[in-house]
Amino acid sequence: MKAVVLLSGGLDSTVCMAVAHAAGHEVLPVSFDYNQRHSRELDSARQVAEHFGVKKHLVIKTNMDDIGGSALTDKNISVPGGDVARDDIPITYVPARNLIFLSYALGYAEVAGADKIYIGVNALDYSGYPDCRPEFINLFQQLADYSTKAAVQDGRHITVETPLINLSKKEIVLLGKKLNAPLALTSSCYAGGENACGKCDSCLLRLKGFAEAGLVDPIKYQG
Amino acid sequence: MKAVVLLSGGLDSTVCMAVAHAAGHEVLPVSFDYNQRHSRELDSARQVAEHFGVKKHLVIKTNMDDIGGSALTDKNISVPGGDVARDDIPITYVPARNLIFLSYALGYAEVAGADKIYIGVNALDYSGYPDCRPEFINLFQQLADYSTKAAVQDGRHITVETPLINLSKKEIVLLGKKLNAPLALTSSCYAGGENACGKCDSCLLRLKGFAEAGLVDPIKYQG
Repeated sequence: MKAVVLLSGGLDSTVCMAVAHAAGHEVLPVSFDYNQRHSRELDSARQVAEHFGVKKHLVIKTNMDDIGGSALTDKNISVPGGDVARDDIPITYVPARNLIFLSYALGYAEVAGADKIYIGVNALDYSGYPDCRPEFINLFQQLADYSTKAAVQDGRHITVETPLINLSKKEIVLLGKKLNAPLALTSSCYAGGENACGKCDSCLLRLKGFAEAGLVDPIKYQG
Repeated sequence: MKAVVLLSGGLDSTVCMAVAHAAGHEVLPVSFDYNQRHSRELDSARQVAEHFGVKKHLVIKTNMDDIGGSALTDKNISVPGGDVARDDIPITYVPARNLIFLSYALGYAEVAGADKIYIGVNALDYSGYPDCRPEFINLFQQLADYSTKAAVQDGRHITVETPLINLSKKEIVLLGKKLNAPLALTSSCYAGGENACGKCDSCLLRLKGFAEAGLVDPIKYQG
């Protein structure tokens, strides 16, 4: 059975890819070159896809920077220092990003004959983005069942799988380790430098996960 | 009040733009260059946007042809002759297209401070695409209310407006005429030639609308 996997090249999506692969699916990774600040993650995505020996790695190119409104797509907005205890949704939130990504994944799954879409969203150790929460995923699933020719005409149900949604970052790291996911190839930092900054939300959550798991993060951080 | 308008450059989206404009909104058109066969429609969209004197016309570029699966995005699949009485969903259906387009529109509305998204879907004189029906729009609206920082944190409700959804093509033509919509600038043909083919679904529906309205279609058709 085929499964489309949303692969950013970060820790979560790579563990998600490993979960889909371990479940016996033929994995069809899709990544997005949306002119993000941290386009370095695309190199990681390519290496992760290669690690899993995929036949095709779909990269969707799109100018989301022309919408902007986020520190990740507007070069004039700085990536703030991490503060994972805050209450509000940080400026690294990219408007409608997961909705856009899942919509492409649905179209791709329909054409490629995949029955599942894997997305590594996580609503526990995360930055508070609304489009990572279970309610969002559940509503997307309902909408997906009304959106496609596959569903409406052919009765093909394409399901969204979120294996990490209730895991802590520690548990995600441990799951990745157990499944031999290529964690050394991943890239999580929002700043997008050669080495991870160790200071943004994404780096802080990742470092916390490895620390609590009692493991050393194999990627390079700035000295 | 600002309104994002999905503007393909076709008859319906142009009338929809006129409706949003007549309602007193500052219209923010967004069009998609998705490597469609009929990219000629983008020239129409630009001219229509110019006609309305918009400050900005956002054009999202994306390689939906790398997903394919449609006569409109895969050059190896021919556009079939029109048959608007058929029961099945034709090969001109583009997987998840309106879902992808609405998702971008939602992100854009959030960043631009728009309260409405106008989309010219029509579920009466149409090609049977699942993502043009009221059920689809209603579910998208529910999802939108869970997807964005605007909704979740700021209580900003962005509504999807579908002024044409229950109109016949005749009524759409008459509405366009009444609002002085620039119908001569529009382009509906799927074949994407210099002049409209007059044979595809889209041309047949358009010609039927003008004929029933007792008006002459001002665009050029192949002799």
